[in-house]
Amino acid sequence: MENIPGLYTNPDPVTQDYIFNHTMLRVRDPKVSLDFYSRVLGMKLLRKVDFNEWKFSLYFLAMVKELPAGDDSAVSTFTAGLSGVLELTHNHGTEENAETPYHNGNTEPRGFGHICFSVPDIKAACERFESLNVPFQKRLGEGGMKNIAFIKDPDNYWVEIIEA
Amino acid sequence: MENIPGLYTNPDPVTQDYIFNHTMLRVRDPKVSLDFYSRVLGMKLLRKVDFNEWKFSLYFLAMVKELPAGDDSAVSTFTAGLSGVLELTHNHGTEENAETPYHNGNTEPRGFGHICFSVPDIKAACERFESLNVPFQKRLGEGGMKNIAFIKDPDNYWVEIIEA
Repeated sequence: MENIPGLYTNPDPVTQDYIFNHTMLRVRDPKVSLDFYSRVLGMKLLRKVDFNEWKFSLYFLAMVKELPAGDDSAVSTFTAGLSGVLELTHNHGTEENAETPYHNGNTEPRGFGHICFSVPDIKAACERFESLNVPFQKRLGEGGMKNIAFIKDPDNYWVEIIEA
Repeated sequence: MENIPGLYTNPDPVTQDYIFNHTMLRVRDPKVSLDFYSRVLGMKLLRKVDFNEWKFSLYFLAMVKELPAGDDSAVSTFTAGLSGVLELTHNHGTEENAETPYHNGNTEPRGFGHICFSVPDIKAACERFESLNVPFQKRLGEGGMKNIAFIKDPDNYWVEIIEA
């Protein structure tokens, strides 16, 4: 990957211990979002942090085999050292809305587009999502890119599914 | 993490090979975004895919020590198997805008909030960002959470900085 305009191929050594740790999405109701990310996608909740004074809570999830042990400080350190963490922000009270107050970035104004999970067998994964009544934005075989799918999380954020 | 409403702590075994692969952000100009993510944050470009018929290009970056070897199929498989990939989408022509046409999700309509990098020494990292003239959304010591910072990427997406 040389000769790509703007690309810097000789990174400062100090950056090489930086970790792309997490992506944060606001969610209407953590009950339904945790159900989606833990039951449908198999993520584990590593950490929940309540900021009651400021009326919000954070939920940190990741695809880990084992939950971290130890006190909140140990779990916080473990979580900060991972890549591929999803942070869900719940502003207290939004769960009382019938519909999500949040915007998924794929209509104007656009910006953020989606998160993506890769799976070992995309056909099996999509059949499983259908059996769980997960809504699809795009099914396998539809549209220009036939070998990928998009499902929707409870706030209508798009979750791309690709085969690893 | 038991007894959290909605949380499913006995995940379907088929989900345990799912990988939270990437987060996609649209960018105005890949030249300036690649400069930011490769020079300032040290990410490596794994793969660039052009869809000229549909007038967009995709750039896949990650914090990897070594670039993958092999043809595009091998690189694609390598990329899909990682966690912590950042996908930048360039819709051809947006680079001609003087300002980004994209919305960072932190004013109405809100939704996506930020991505986050963890670093070994946040004070040193923030001093380095200052020396590189990176704009800050929030400096260390400001606001309610004094031990985190937010910098802004070239499209004004917020990038949280925490200490691992």
